[in-house]
Amino acid sequence: MAYLFAKKGFEVVGIGHGQWTEKDWAASGLSDWHCADVTLEFLQRYGGKPHAILHCAGSGSVGFSIHNPLEDFQRTVATTEHVLEYVRLFSPATRVVYPSSASVYGSAEVLPIHEDCRAAPISQYGVHKLMAEQAVASFSRQFGISASIVRLFSVYGCGLRKQLLWDACRKFAADDAVFMGTGDEVRDWLHVEDAAKLMHAATQHASQDCPTVNGGSGEGITVRRLLQHLSVALLQRQVDLAFSGLQRTGDPDRYIADVTRAKGWGWHPQRQWQDGVTEYAAWWRQGAGKREDATP
Amino acid sequence: MAYLFAKKGFEVVGIGHGQWTEKDWAASGLSDWHCADVTLEFLQRYGGKPHAILHCAGSGSVGFSIHNPLEDFQRTVATTEHVLEYVRLFSPATRVVYPSSASVYGSAEVLPIHEDCRAAPISQYGVHKLMAEQAVASFSRQFGISASIVRLFSVYGCGLRKQLLWDACRKFAADDAVFMGTGDEVRDWLHVEDAAKLMHAATQHASQDCPTVNGGSGEGITVRRLLQHLSVALLQRQVDLAFSGLQRTGDPDRYIADVTRAKGWGWHPQRQWQDGVTEYAAWWRQGAGKREDATP
Repeated sequence: MAYLFAKKGFEVVGIGHGQWTEKDWAASGLSDWHCADVTLEFLQRYGGKPHAILHCAGSGSVGFSIHNPLEDFQRTVATTEHVLEYVRLFSPATRVVYPSSASVYGSAEVLPIHEDCRAAPISQYGVHKLMAEQAVASFSRQFGISASIVRLFSVYGCGLRKQLLWDACRKFAADDAVFMGTGDEVRDWLHVEDAAKLMHAATQHASQDCPTVNGGSGEGITVRRLLQHLSVALLQRQVDLAFSGLQRTGDPDRYIADVTRAKGWGWHPQRQWQDGVTEYAAWWRQGAGKREDATP
Repeated sequence: MAYLFAKKGFEVVGIGHGQWTEKDWAASGLSDWHCADVTLEFLQRYGGKPHAILHCAGSGSVGFSIHNPLEDFQRTVATTEHVLEYVRLFSPATRVVYPSSASVYGSAEVLPIHEDCRAAPISQYGVHKLMAEQAVASFSRQFGISASIVRLFSVYGCGLRKQLLWDACRKFAADDAVFMGTGDEVRDWLHVEDAAKLMHAATQHASQDCPTVNGGSGEGITVRRLLQHLSVALLQRQVDLAFSGLQRTGDPDRYIADVTRAKGWGWHPQRQWQDGVTEYAAWWRQGAGKREDATP
């Protein structure tokens, strides 16, 4: 994400959690990194008057929100209000781009999911993402802050040391092929490069109307099909996959994004999921799997 | 509110802001009063395992939310998450009743407003009330907490030392009769005794489905008509009212509640607005207006 913005000439400063070495964060495109909570007080000291804030801070999983709902709230919703208050009071020309999540839709009845579909999240994680969206849209409307919201579907790519592809690589490496769920869950996989380009477009299209767009490929792929492709890319053979059959709490069955609105910004997803998964497997084989210290 | 619950045999303990004397809070029906922020930490020390929590804490006005949106968020939304987390972790049998606000509807197109009408608040205050509602409903669904939500319309009654009736009494006493707005704003006035009875019903009907009901009289009365009635009750004559003509930011034109759902609980509003306003005027004349120290 930072890399793309740096390539486009931005000086990218990161604030968040994670013990990176300077070598790591510099390689990711950041020109500075603050390990800190995202609070009004911290932003007053170090926030400056940036062209845009990509407010990526927040809790990262449905599972975490089930066991730590108040902490999930503080990471996702409270930090958003702090960022918005900072912009309102101290840097009103700064654009705010909020990466939200397909989880705000819950179990959508009609696919692909359009942005005007009634949001009905089925997890605490999704409820908190929706609450954060409402804060962004409201500050935008009430106080004239230029903002936009991107509801990201299943973003993946090299460097991601969590979630399905990461867990699957670890399992395959350990001769394990048993997964949660049914394997028939449909997800819309978006390569991180496409996601970064969409975030850049969202920065350009931020306005006081706070446009909200879906960030997906527009294509639905089952978990089973994705894992089959990964196993071939990683091990040069089809692995016999097994699934627990139990649906995970808070995980809807099927997600496919209607990306008409984002395409209206001139953005188009360019990476095919097969290539992206093959690339991920290559990254893992080149040593990622051997380095278990999780950098964000 | 506390008085009705005390009369029904509850021991009512209050937590909130306000420097009451023991005489004052005891007279209001409270058996104890803690002047404190509503936080998980405080509740862990003093919350106990009550039958129900009526989570009335929160910011109280659209105007405040415009000038202090982050503070409005902390008072309204963050306190709600703390209460919910307390119940989830330490007192899961406690029922949570949330007094929300008609402001979550924004400018409704169809009157009277039904609970299933799409919430579209037009003020930061309304957005934060809606976010708090979503937190309550989600904790209820996700974690099995018995909860209910009452969207209160314009609650009034003796003892209320703020808002339209209070301001109008002060103005009339000072020979002033100029008001904000157009006078044609329609509001649904609910007497505090009816509101308290509805909160009691909401306690009884709290469940894991988190029912949401409107709390209004079902009748729409213009601000002009209410003030005319008040002036006669207070001064025994019609006062020539003047209005600025300017709509207040964040104030919708017309509010009338559809109270079918609350009536389904066996609750019925019993106080006529004319009687309630006359009663309020009598309370003012009996000395309330001479005592300007604002108790909550």
